[in-house]
Amino acid sequence: MRAEGRIMHVAVLDEPGSLRVEARERPEPAPDEILVNVREIGICGSDVHYYEHGKIGDYVVESPLVLGHESAGEVVEVGENTKFEPGDRVALEPGVPCRRCPHCKRGEYNLCPDVTFMATPPDDGAFAEYVAWPADFAYRLPDSVSLREGALCEPLSVGIHAARRGNVGVGDSVLVTGCGPIGLLAMEAVRAAGATEVFISDVVPEKLQLAESRGADAIIDVRETDLKNAVAELTDGEGVDVVIEASGAEPAIRSTIDAVRRGGTLVFVGLAQNAEIPLDTGKIIDNELDLFGSFRYRNTYPEAIELLADGEVDVEGIVDFELELGEIGDAFERAKEGKTVKGMITT
Amino acid sequence: MRAEGRIMHVAVLDEPGSLRVEARERPEPAPDEILVNVREIGICGSDVHYYEHGKIGDYVVESPLVLGHESAGEVVEVGENTKFEPGDRVALEPGVPCRRCPHCKRGEYNLCPDVTFMATPPDDGAFAEYVAWPADFAYRLPDSVSLREGALCEPLSVGIHAARRGNVGVGDSVLVTGCGPIGLLAMEAVRAAGATEVFISDVVPEKLQLAESRGADAIIDVRETDLKNAVAELTDGEGVDVVIEASGAEPAIRSTIDAVRRGGTLVFVGLAQNAEIPLDTGKIIDNELDLFGSFRYRNTYPEAIELLADGEVDVEGIVDFELELGEIGDAFERAKEGKTVKGMITT
Amino acid sequence: MRAEGRIMHVAVLDEPGSLRVEARERPEPAPDEILVNVREIGICGSDVHYYEHGKIGDYVVESPLVLGHESAGEVVEVGENTKFEPGDRVALEPGVPCRRCPHCKRGEYNLCPDVTFMATPPDDGAFAEYVAWPADFAYRLPDSVSLREGALCEPLSVGIHAARRGNVGVGDSVLVTGCGPIGLLAMEAVRAAGATEVFISDVVPEKLQLAESRGADAIIDVRETDLKNAVAELTDGEGVDVVIEASGAEPAIRSTIDAVRRGGTLVFVGLAQNAEIPLDTGKIIDNELDLFGSFRYRNTYPEAIELLADGEVDVEGIVDFELELGEIGDAFERAKEGKTVKGMITT
Amino acid sequence: MRAEGRIMHVAVLDEPGSLRVEARERPEPAPDEILVNVREIGICGSDVHYYEHGKIGDYVVESPLVLGHESAGEVVEVGENTKFEPGDRVALEPGVPCRRCPHCKRGEYNLCPDVTFMATPPDDGAFAEYVAWPADFAYRLPDSVSLREGALCEPLSVGIHAARRGNVGVGDSVLVTGCGPIGLLAMEAVRAAGATEVFISDVVPEKLQLAESRGADAIIDVRETDLKNAVAELTDGEGVDVVIEASGAEPAIRSTIDAVRRGGTLVFVGLAQNAEIPLDTGKIIDNELDLFGSFRYRNTYPEAIELLADGEVDVEGIVDFELELGEIGDAFERAKEGKTVKGMITT
Repeated sequence: MRAEGRIMHVAVLDEPGSLRVEARERPEPAPDEILVNVREIGICGSDVHYYEHGKIGDYVVESPLVLGHESAGEVVEVGENTKFEPGDRVALEPGVPCRRCPHCKRGEYNLCPDVTFMATPPDDGAFAEYVAWPADFAYRLPDSVSLREGALCEPLSVGIHAARRGNVGVGDSVLVTGCGPIGLLAMEAVRAAGATEVFISDVVPEKLQLAESRGADAIIDVRETDLKNAVAELTDGEGVDVVIEASGAEPAIRSTIDAVRRGGTLVFVGLAQNAEIPLDTGKIIDNELDLFGSFRYRNTYPEAIELLADGEVDVEGIVDFELELGEIGDAFERAKEGKTVKGMITT
Repeated sequence: MRAEGRIMHVAVLDEPGSLRVEARERPEPAPDEILVNVREIGICGSDVHYYEHGKIGDYVVESPLVLGHESAGEVVEVGENTKFEPGDRVALEPGVPCRRCPHCKRGEYNLCPDVTFMATPPDDGAFAEYVAWPADFAYRLPDSVSLREGALCEPLSVGIHAARRGNVGVGDSVLVTGCGPIGLLAMEAVRAAGATEVFISDVVPEKLQLAESRGADAIIDVRETDLKNAVAELTDGEGVDVVIEASGAEPAIRSTIDAVRRGGTLVFVGLAQNAEIPLDTGKIIDNELDLFGSFRYRNTYPEAIELLADGEVDVEGIVDFELELGEIGDAFERAKEGKTVKGMITT
Repeated sequence: MRAEGRIMHVAVLDEPGSLRVEARERPEPAPDEILVNVREIGICGSDVHYYEHGKIGDYVVESPLVLGHESAGEVVEVGENTKFEPGDRVALEPGVPCRRCPHCKRGEYNLCPDVTFMATPPDDGAFAEYVAWPADFAYRLPDSVSLREGALCEPLSVGIHAARRGNVGVGDSVLVTGCGPIGLLAMEAVRAAGATEVFISDVVPEKLQLAESRGADAIIDVRETDLKNAVAELTDGEGVDVVIEASGAEPAIRSTIDAVRRGGTLVFVGLAQNAEIPLDTGKIIDNELDLFGSFRYRNTYPEAIELLADGEVDVEGIVDFELELGEIGDAFERAKEGKTVKGMITT
Repeated sequence: MRAEGRIMHVAVLDEPGSLRVEARERPEPAPDEILVNVREIGICGSDVHYYEHGKIGDYVVESPLVLGHESAGEVVEVGENTKFEPGDRVALEPGVPCRRCPHCKRGEYNLCPDVTFMATPPDDGAFAEYVAWPADFAYRLPDSVSLREGALCEPLSVGIHAARRGNVGVGDSVLVTGCGPIGLLAMEAVRAAGATEVFISDVVPEKLQLAESRGADAIIDVRETDLKNAVAELTDGEGVDVVIEASGAEPAIRSTIDAVRRGGTLVFVGLAQNAEIPLDTGKIIDNELDLFGSFRYRNTYPEAIELLADGEVDVEGIVDFELELGEIGDAFERAKEGKTVKGMITT
């Protein structure tokens, strides 16, 4: 069933700014793995960050690394212990936990300290023609869900997890800070969860216009208006039920506390450049706020696919451009531009 | 501001089968009350039950009773401690709790043993031209929400509460048993909460067709097919994530346990004629099910109105007919028919 | 490090009533396993049921089976991927799930359909001198916790899980129905979780006396008094906050609904002989009860050991007798007697 | 039943540093109130703060104010709508909410913006011989609970609420920062909720010794050791499950994030002098922490009394001294001393 001596192309980051395509041997799937012909891969801000700086926090690219962790493709080979068949179309969840630690046993596998996560040094990612991947972290796509949508289940999962962390429910008002892919898809997720009013803020007019065209009930350009006042005006001075902070911008992070109602909820998703940020702990206490960190996601892919199949959410509309794997250098240069929301690589 | 010697018309149930309109003195609102010119009132199954049998369980109509608890209208007078103005359009939440017992303090005011509930003996209801009502159980309707929608916030609230009791969330599959108003509006509520697959069962083809036209992903006619098998087929043998039992039919209640997935959730809303029903406790344990009773609702009106204002749910589409207060006898006769879903009285 | 040709003794059930000790080859631990010299094994009601009837529900003993799933012992060999050392004293969690299904990923691994569970056909159990077991389902015991306590972490886990399912918290009143090991240890668990009033019922005076001596605030002999009335008297007519049903007796199961307060919680743990039991669904709805099935346990061993190390709970006090592995036939005969709570096998 | 022209003594704060006893007319209880002969009143840090500074944040003492909000006493007169009898011993919950706002309806009445709270300007408190108080915020004490314990239900409630906000459960490890009354009673509350390891930190050796004598598993003197390192050592580098911040000290608040395990929980109770405090938002996200503000309490008095009646917690042991109402000036001077934990006023 398997051809020997097979090769494939992957895009490798050697050092900051240097992405090149090289030939590698196609991997063999282990008994509980599948081999996937990757067809669509999203470019994430973290990929661009590695491309520009060669590291994110303590994670340093020390040897050639394949980036990319938003991927979907077609199954071409199956390990004997899997339930897939060649031809199945799948989305790949990029983090595979140890399955044995207390976090994994409790179902919070996104906190597993021994996770293998695509495109996080030293683990290779998905800008590759083929990836062998554990079958239980691959999810079959129904015909109504495209491979591109499958790849974008990854950022959508970040949004779904944030919405869950924030206990967003029917009738809630939500402020999302930041109109990047995570902010825009968090907006989709909270809408799906029943939020009836969704406001969104940013500093880039083009992104705010995109958010408005995607159904935001109000857009707030924080270069021109104060976030606290804008939200107060929109909510009769009450503040929103939930804020999802997806910008990573210090002013936005600080403002969340003023934008939420008494007894409301803050979810922090966006990582700030300088993590230490002054927060009004007095208001956290007096207004008895709930503040939740939200890290990646867990148990979201099946729901993301259900939402896509049901037509409840739009993920393709955030894509600005697509290029082929051979054009990955150009793609990353373009992704660096401030107005870009999401670029896709196809193979 | 107030006219003396004012009268109004109300519909009174004297004894089973006997509804008549009589003139009564218009009430005066207390300082924390508003006087509402009621304009739309829904006929609930419980109203019909009192009409036919003169009692529901321990609640017996012993003196003339005004039925009706699904109502909305226009504010005509305001107590001095309220924030309403004449002309405001409002939906009335029909149960006003004691505000002092442990249930009220915990926020589960629907369980307050000293609640005053419209149209539950000995408390009069809303088939009346005017009702004086505590201002904090009246909810202002935005222009985009009709008075009819306001009245139907009541059964919608039953659906929202059931969806909350069932922790329905994004991507869930839900079976609703029963295509009456509660079943149909529970379907709206679970959709709003993110359910992506909603199946519904009944024994009346016309009601099933209505449910299908309102977006049910599958309808199950339990006269023709076994509920368990039908659900198994729709869910690859897994069962649904949540069942909302809204029929009160013993066979449906028993079947819920076979229709839900391992670790899934059952919500019982519909009261059965004979309350004692054999349930498979072995499966409740082995499959570690959650089974929640759901009684009326609490803290749902603001969210119901938000959903209506947002166009997320359709409540008017369940209305079969409307008649005027003077025609209430005819209206109840018509409401007794099995195919009727919801009748409305207007004033 | 390992001796070849090693043998050990195990107790084998061939057919109902026939337990014998035979020599088997000592297993080799896999890389992620440890080999444990089992020293203390509890006799569970399910073991006795297999001994008497050769089956439990769909689980039938079709080939010789080693019973026993409440065990602790000393590590004698370690796989290369484990963090244990020979000499470590460990409790063994008897169910090892697949780690890959949706239940496992969500942390509800007790619902994994592909679990390997000691002493559940066809998986062998722990009435054996040696068991090889996945290291992540073995838990190191501190010096202050005895091997017997380690073995009894298993039934204690059932109690802890039931208390968690019931959301038992500080100041709660709890009724436990049934004074077997599960009932008695559920009593310990709810006390540890902050319950301030704990009542317990049974039909065997000796067991009730044991419960009283272990700190029950009231004991209820349901041969002599009605459970509902007894609880009403103890709670000013309100009912308890939580009932944990640990008897599996139909009358007790039915009575739980009358013994709990409005808005209260029922946890069903004990399996009834005939699973279908009439329950008052009207009260479930009107009183808006929460009813939770509780199946085995998940993520409880670390907490069980913490409680034991802290002296918060007493498990050894429920042991009636101990016998050696060679006397296992006598032990099971004794365990069949109605007054026995817990027998232990030592090696 | 009532004597006319009755007088009583109260302690009045005119301006910072000036407390005097004056005669006032004894109040008449309204129909839903009781008149209580106050017998024990605790001196809270907030009382001392008003005494020293004449204000707390936006709350300014502008006219003579009666301080004191930790109180218990004996019922002497009863309104007609109450269920008390003269002679009943009661603890008074000092905050009475509006009962009508969305917070009240949701059961989070501690967030009611229209609360009447004893000793918060302009509402008088309990350093008085008599107080008339709504009956539903008075709680009957069983014989086994002393009036002093009744008064100390107030700070115990703060601890219980914090433990609930932190979801403290069986087997948890908890760090409490701060050995004042709230820290010490939070320690009692988390113990009652099942915490098996409780560490506590402070800068005052005498308070740490008191905490140790009250059962802290470890005390951390943060003048001598780094909180993060100390907790890491106590928890094998993992961090605790829950931190309850009860010091209001900026260094402690900042350190909480380093002292908690991945996926753990922080509860902020203690108000800092300067509310804006730099927090490591990166760790909040990467470690997916839950951070909860905890403001006063709700629905805690019945549970507090249950715990006291059950002997589960010790509150009297934190009392340093008692003085009579006439000595209140001396009492406040003594309460200002750093080593004092809790002073009581008796009448």
